[in-house]
Amino acid sequence: MNEHRQIMTEYLAAFVEELVQAGVKEAVISPGSRSTPIALLMAEHPTLKIYVDVDERSAGFFALGIAKASKRPVVLLCTSGTAAANYFPAVAEANLSQVPLLVLTADRPHELRNVGAPQAMDQVRLFGSHVKDFTDMALPENSTEMLRFAKWHGSKAVDIAMNAPRGPVHLNFPLREPLMPILEPSPFAVTEKKRRHVHIYYTHEVLEDAVIAQIIEACAGKRGVFVAGPLDKKAFSPKLVALAEQIGWPILADPLSQLRSYGALSDAVIDQYDAILQEEVARAALRPEVVIRFGAMPVSKPLMKWLEALEDVMFYVVDPGAAWKDPIKAVTNMIHCDEHFLVGALTDGWQEKTAPDWMETWQQLNAKVKTVIGAHMETLDKLDEGKLVYELREWIPEKAGLFIGNSMPIRDVDTYFAQVDKQVRMLANRGANGIDGVVSSALGASLTEQPMYLLIGDLSFYHDMNGLLMAKKYGLNLTIIVVNNNGGGIFSFLPQASDPKYFESLFGTGTDLDFRYTAALYEGDFHEVADWDEFHDALDQAHFHKGLDIIEVKTNRYENVDAHRTLWEAIKTAIRSELA
Amino acid sequence: MNEHRQIMTEYLAAFVEELVQAGVKEAVISPGSRSTPIALLMAEHPTLKIYVDVDERSAGFFALGIAKASKRPVVLLCTSGTAAANYFPAVAEANLSQVPLLVLTADRPHELRNVGAPQAMDQVRLFGSHVKDFTDMALPENSTEMLRFAKWHGSKAVDIAMNAPRGPVHLNFPLREPLMPILEPSPFAVTEKKRRHVHIYYTHEVLEDAVIAQIIEACAGKRGVFVAGPLDKKAFSPKLVALAEQIGWPILADPLSQLRSYGALSDAVIDQYDAILQEEVARAALRPEVVIRFGAMPVSKPLMKWLEALEDVMFYVVDPGAAWKDPIKAVTNMIHCDEHFLVGALTDGWQEKTAPDWMETWQQLNAKVKTVIGAHMETLDKLDEGKLVYELREWIPEKAGLFIGNSMPIRDVDTYFAQVDKQVRMLANRGANGIDGVVSSALGASLTEQPMYLLIGDLSFYHDMNGLLMAKKYGLNLTIIVVNNNGGGIFSFLPQASDPKYFESLFGTGTDLDFRYTAALYEGDFHEVADWDEFHDALDQAHFHKGLDIIEVKTNRYENVDAHRTLWEAIKTAIRSELA
Repeated sequence: MNEHRQIMTEYLAAFVEELVQAGVKEAVISPGSRSTPIALLMAEHPTLKIYVDVDERSAGFFALGIAKASKRPVVLLCTSGTAAANYFPAVAEANLSQVPLLVLTADRPHELRNVGAPQAMDQVRLFGSHVKDFTDMALPENSTEMLRFAKWHGSKAVDIAMNAPRGPVHLNFPLREPLMPILEPSPFAVTEKKRRHVHIYYTHEVLEDAVIAQIIEACAGKRGVFVAGPLDKKAFSPKLVALAEQIGWPILADPLSQLRSYGALSDAVIDQYDAILQEEVARAALRPEVVIRFGAMPVSKPLMKWLEALEDVMFYVVDPGAAWKDPIKAVTNMIHCDEHFLVGALTDGWQEKTAPDWMETWQQLNAKVKTVIGAHMETLDKLDEGKLVYELREWIPEKAGLFIGNSMPIRDVDTYFAQVDKQVRMLANRGANGIDGVVSSALGASLTEQPMYLLIGDLSFYHDMNGLLMAKKYGLNLTIIVVNNNGGGIFSFLPQASDPKYFESLFGTGTDLDFRYTAALYEGDFHEVADWDEFHDALDQAHFHKGLDIIEVKTNRYENVDAHRTLWEAIKTAIRSELA
Repeated sequence: MNEHRQIMTEYLAAFVEELVQAGVKEAVISPGSRSTPIALLMAEHPTLKIYVDVDERSAGFFALGIAKASKRPVVLLCTSGTAAANYFPAVAEANLSQVPLLVLTADRPHELRNVGAPQAMDQVRLFGSHVKDFTDMALPENSTEMLRFAKWHGSKAVDIAMNAPRGPVHLNFPLREPLMPILEPSPFAVTEKKRRHVHIYYTHEVLEDAVIAQIIEACAGKRGVFVAGPLDKKAFSPKLVALAEQIGWPILADPLSQLRSYGALSDAVIDQYDAILQEEVARAALRPEVVIRFGAMPVSKPLMKWLEALEDVMFYVVDPGAAWKDPIKAVTNMIHCDEHFLVGALTDGWQEKTAPDWMETWQQLNAKVKTVIGAHMETLDKLDEGKLVYELREWIPEKAGLFIGNSMPIRDVDTYFAQVDKQVRMLANRGANGIDGVVSSALGASLTEQPMYLLIGDLSFYHDMNGLLMAKKYGLNLTIIVVNNNGGGIFSFLPQASDPKYFESLFGTGTDLDFRYTAALYEGDFHEVADWDEFHDALDQAHFHKGLDIIEVKTNRYENVDAHRTLWEAIKTAIRSELA
């Protein structure tokens, strides 16, 4: 029995050590029996930081949040059975939003698989096409070959997860009883450090000079736009801004491109295109000859429809890792090149500036829309979802992180969070755009970004309330602004809103929950705000309170639609008069 | 556009109507945009009862609970993206515990798949090997052939889900905008009823008379035992009891076999085998020549180990639908026959009774253990997890339903819920034995069984607190007894408990949550009980309160292990003296 334990310990310790050597710093573990030896070895590891999260669904998103914000590979570990199935939403999101997760599941050994054993289910290829790689590991053995096998898979898993496009990797570990590893002496003592490890050299994709020259030749002097969708690469924003200013092209910058909040202001950044492109005359006046798109597809539907309708345009998609995120099928030139490299090379070689009226028209309309929105905001005394974002933009501190919920919050940020002279890192789960797991994702991100804010709707908040346990348990510092319109606000913008018969029961779906009790359950400070002064006070209080703060802003879905529509009409009118 | 809507309406209405004609009465819907037409058509259907559950994970288990208790196929519907991934735990459980679920997911049409479109992910074969069947449906068309295709798949899905072994079926529906169906006039008006529908004839598996005679010939007069694991077939219990009494065989009856609570008492039912078979001398004295096992594998580990160690025994497994649930690989005779049919045929043809000392030894030990447990219970003044079950058995009303949580509750029920002269339907999620989704499963079951009770540990309760929203929303009547030992009680019985270094952080994992706030959030009555009188009072109050009641019984994990171990030692001593 001790021999079994010794073999298992050496095999699993070799794997765990290799993960750490390859760059893993955090593991999120959910309690379970079959996973005991891996969990204990991770706890015993001298440098690995572990977080224990009882709910595997939340755990998956917590790990995703850490990995997204830190850009490091993060480990998940759970026991056999449905525990692993609870990871599926986070795994699917990580796969689509290119977040490196290492999903480790403990499993019954082969003799207890598919025979009706308790807490056993088919875990082979559990996540199907939603992981980049899957390995059904061998039972522990401590032969030289099998120790190398364990280590090799530790390195390989991290490498695959980190290579563009990043994403989740799943390893399934069959384990036999007894499940207790031997921790005395520690398997991570000195000798372990002497073991061979794989050093992984991460590459990036580049283009030949001649190809760069061809691209410049094809584009220079033309009326072009940069479209920057969700993209979170350090120091990329000022680089792209410098190029845009140099060649006289606007950047249509999604909030998640980081270009609206990189710490400086640039007239080249256009942040009101969502409003501008709703107006037909603007769409026609702003027709480009070239589009160069970075990152994933922006959230703005008017932008997407406008891009989709452009015919006879050169449409470059910059897409390292060949993810082919192009739902409008607009690409004419596909460039799998590192964004930093491409922008640097273009900046070096591209001298010709497009005629200034091109940029000026964009800037003029952008400024006009901001004026209309500003005037609109002045008229709003009552709590309003758009103004909430507008106010938050003013208030949010320098170098904060802002996690943005899906459905309405990300759209409101797109509309109302204009470029700002502060560094604010904007994060969201825009792979599959789910309302699930957002609380946990923000809490995971809060380990890297401080101070951290989460803007979220009430249904999405409800969906992942369990995630709040991690805030209580680890004393995490997060301020959550819950826009509580008691239900699914986005549906009020859809055709079904006009048919009241089933609207509230199927789509409105208000929960009528008093989140005061949620705050009490998880020992967070609760701030219910009735007006803008109270909102500002609550933000101030939360800023000085280290821990969980929940600021609830109650709004009305029906009034919210009216307010949005009134504003859009005012904007359209202003644009038409501007272009007349 | 209206033509598109008309076509979509006819196609989807034909499918929905066919589901209903094939036996579907309930649909559990989660709000979403892409699923709009199916959701509206289900709401519009004159007889289909719909439940709206915002959290798809809970929704999956809520549907599973309805289907498990009602034995009817139940529909799930959600939108595209990670929503569907949230169903995975319930789908995996339904597959292993043979519960008929029809999982409908809305999807983007093909031109928006795998192109980076928002809220889109690969939903083809999303649940892999965890469903019985998958169909990627065609886009709506209203040709005669395609309407037949839609209806045909409605019937087929129900049929496959209901055929032994029952389980989940997944259908994925690509849908194009606009997503509003046409409900005026109702597509379910008179003409719909005139359409052809498939009448499904459900069969059951039988054996030829000659084969029955062979089985009787091989077994009659031998020392045999019936092992009845989780099995929930109406009126099966008295039938098996009559056979057992007729031939002089004991029935080792798992609580989920329903044989401990079918409304009468029989000496043939042995309910203390979990204790008896922990003692070596008993294991030897009770060696059978034949085992006939019904249902899934019982929860008792001593029973499983004893059965596994039996050599040279004839081991019949009765397994309609060929699920091959036999983790101990003990089967020598595999019978895919309907249990009712087999027991009826055996009763008709099997006259020879086994020598009475065989049954008497079992009965004598069974009675002895009950005496020891009874005496032990007398000594317990403080709240105790075992005594809680012992008391609940006394108190629970006739014709109640009892949903039993996994991990410790099901084991405590196995040990402490002896046969009782009441009808109590025992339910649990024993497919993958997860602690997830248990609250929602019990709430789903509460639609069929009343009064309904749930016995659950605090971690499992925490895992699915979101499920409580359905209790609040639909005024469901459920009494939840939360055994709160602040963490994972089962780990205290495992080897890691002896190593305190990481035990509490990795395995104990107490949440320190005050569930009073959970009750307040979901508007349930909360009863914290400090002693047995308060426990009885709380049960009485809950019995007369129609709605959600949460009774919290705080216990101590360390004391609990001691209490269990003290009792087991006393039982072993008593058995040894009995057999000496």
